[in-house]
Amino acid sequence: MNEERAMDIEACLDRYAELIVRKGCNVQPGQSLYLGADSFSCDFAVKVAEAAYEAGARYVQVDLVDERFQRARLNLSQEKFLDHVPRHVPIRMDEAIDDQGAMIRLVGSGDPEVLSGLDAERSNRCRLAHHKAVKRFFDEGIGRSMVQWCVASAATIGWAESIFDDSRGEEACQQLWRLLLKIVRADREDCLQAWDDHSASLALRSAALNQLELDHILFSGPGTDLTVGLSPKARFEGGSIRSQRGNEFIPNLPTEEVFTTPDWRKTQGDVRVTRPFLVNGTLVKDLRMTFRDGVLVNFEASSGQETLRSYVDSDEGARRLGEVALVGIDSPVYQSGHVFREILLDENAACHIAVGNAYKSCLDDGVNLSKEQLEEIGFNASSAHTDMMISDEEVDVMGVTSGGKEVELLHGGAWVFGK
Amino acid sequence: MNEERAMDIEACLDRYAELIVRKGCNVQPGQSLYLGADSFSCDFAVKVAEAAYEAGARYVQVDLVDERFQRARLNLSQEKFLDHVPRHVPIRMDEAIDDQGAMIRLVGSGDPEVLSGLDAERSNRCRLAHHKAVKRFFDEGIGRSMVQWCVASAATIGWAESIFDDSRGEEACQQLWRLLLKIVRADREDCLQAWDDHSASLALRSAALNQLELDHILFSGPGTDLTVGLSPKARFEGGSIRSQRGNEFIPNLPTEEVFTTPDWRKTQGDVRVTRPFLVNGTLVKDLRMTFRDGVLVNFEASSGQETLRSYVDSDEGARRLGEVALVGIDSPVYQSGHVFREILLDENAACHIAVGNAYKSCLDDGVNLSKEQLEEIGFNASSAHTDMMISDEEVDVMGVTSGGKEVELLHGGAWVFGK
Repeated sequence: MNEERAMDIEACLDRYAELIVRKGCNVQPGQSLYLGADSFSCDFAVKVAEAAYEAGARYVQVDLVDERFQRARLNLSQEKFLDHVPRHVPIRMDEAIDDQGAMIRLVGSGDPEVLSGLDAERSNRCRLAHHKAVKRFFDEGIGRSMVQWCVASAATIGWAESIFDDSRGEEACQQLWRLLLKIVRADREDCLQAWDDHSASLALRSAALNQLELDHILFSGPGTDLTVGLSPKARFEGGSIRSQRGNEFIPNLPTEEVFTTPDWRKTQGDVRVTRPFLVNGTLVKDLRMTFRDGVLVNFEASSGQETLRSYVDSDEGARRLGEVALVGIDSPVYQSGHVFREILLDENAACHIAVGNAYKSCLDDGVNLSKEQLEEIGFNASSAHTDMMISDEEVDVMGVTSGGKEVELLHGGAWVFGK
Repeated sequence: MNEERAMDIEACLDRYAELIVRKGCNVQPGQSLYLGADSFSCDFAVKVAEAAYEAGARYVQVDLVDERFQRARLNLSQEKFLDHVPRHVPIRMDEAIDDQGAMIRLVGSGDPEVLSGLDAERSNRCRLAHHKAVKRFFDEGIGRSMVQWCVASAATIGWAESIFDDSRGEEACQQLWRLLLKIVRADREDCLQAWDDHSASLALRSAALNQLELDHILFSGPGTDLTVGLSPKARFEGGSIRSQRGNEFIPNLPTEEVFTTPDWRKTQGDVRVTRPFLVNGTLVKDLRMTFRDGVLVNFEASSGQETLRSYVDSDEGARRLGEVALVGIDSPVYQSGHVFREILLDENAACHIAVGNAYKSCLDDGVNLSKEQLEEIGFNASSAHTDMMISDEEVDVMGVTSGGKEVELLHGGAWVFGK
């Protein structure tokens, strides 16, 4: 019996559900919870709902999705109806804000390629209309932490089969669960304590980086020579954050990153994307990009290039950076040796940048800055946000302070700063 | 190869989805559709959504349910939170009215016994709060036919295994699909035409019954000697109906019944329920009931008795009749030889009565009658509505006209009137 087989998956799943509810979202007695999940991960979502009621939740409103319905719409709806968003959709989301509620979203599609190859213009049209409709939730609920929220993953057969070559059906799903449970430390009996410790270490790392007062970050390696500029107001964040109501929560499980908001105008150079990622349901592979004066001016990919082109052309901010994040190769996601084709996991395997919308919470007093003040410091606003992994064991990361001092942050993909 | 195996199930499923959309709900170009389904019947729900977009639907809002979340709530929520209904729930339903939309609900649970054995008081508390919240939708959307709506069934493995003793898993599900597809005539290439014809024949039967001007109906057979009184305003209905907007639709697929609203005060006698049925998720078997002066005064069942007691005590109207319906043994549901433990099917196997809320649409100008006028004619109002099948091949049904003339309607469970 090897170690993996010895894992008591049921017990780990119960612990994972408790982790999501108690540490990830930190559901409080009397709070309402919005729980979003793929219909293919209902079994685990039920465990999360049970854990939430046990924590004293007032109500768990469950929103089950199946992307095949979106595929049907994108394929078959008349063009003129693609902008339609039902009235109750924003009301449902805003209810979480007004109730000072909480949100958990379980990612992991029943079929990761289900939206692949659809008309990119039609996809963007739907996405933009939806984004506009739920803007208040993202600005206030997420952006101002009016709600506690946590995004975590749940295995499905379809997702597992897209990752493993040698395993199918329920066996593949169990294999993926074993990986996920280990990555989120739910294989450890002291899982909740381990997350307190891990979250504290990410907060310490952020604080140390903030003391450096970095002006820009240099990424270098094969195919990569990229400068990402920061504003003097940029603050690194990592681990748990605190809601407006004062409840600590961990927005992503797993999270291995420290991240901040760049000054988009200062992005310069070439970069090689080290892991595939999804755009509007299509996998983009072997992407290389060139930024000039902050704008993505050129790129090529071995697949998904046209989908990406349509995406970055959908909105002015989609060719500008909205995030830079640092992750070392000690990350359990990197250590697993797998590419998950799911950004929640993959962004926690490597350093990454994102095109699209930036986080106000990563700027000093950012949520209180006016639109003009944000523009002045190169804050990028966009309906898009897509992370792209840019490090591996061949990439070094250097920080340059406002005083011009160089500080080595990562070497060969591994943290050296703060060790 | 036998006939059943020869059925091309995929082709029949496509035809069934089209039947539901085009005839059942009659979705119009530009209409929004609310599509409710169990998460276990997503595969078929996707076909329905595709058929709706092909019919020109503006938007299909999909509401996937999994009763395990309700079980978690009923088992684990604090008592004081059981009344809570999120604000968006009625808004979501009312949007269908305000948009002059349409609704399709696919029944067939992933596990028909999932809510069995839960605390009946807690179940009723949830049910009553929900009923109150969505009252406008049921009064106006359904009661006044402001929306077109259709309830149809979809097979799931769990449901199939609860019906068949000798078949499990996907095989059982396919076996159930073959039965359902035959019952809804989707095994016939002329399925849509067949439903036009069938619906017309139910309308003719209703019209013929209405011409009799029945005062009451007598059910007699082993254990049954029941009088169900009607008001002079009672009208039989059957087959398709017309929405306020003028679109014809068939509210149930299948439908084999002609039905009307009784004067609840005139119910007298004993009745044997011939098929098991579910109340709050618990199966009630071998029920015998006694009505005196319109009120259910005594009953016993071999199982589910306490659940039923709590249900009929939850609301004054739950011990009074709200419906009487006539179905002959030529019904494809009866002919299938199966009990489906799903009321949409089972109520179309036999004559039935329902305790609980009555239909205003089955009264002459009923939707325009005041509460007082309705009370005067013995219209029953309730938050409950549960159908109970009361005929088989040993039951005869006699109509007695306002002039005192006896007319034999069914003999040995089979229609003789109108033949």
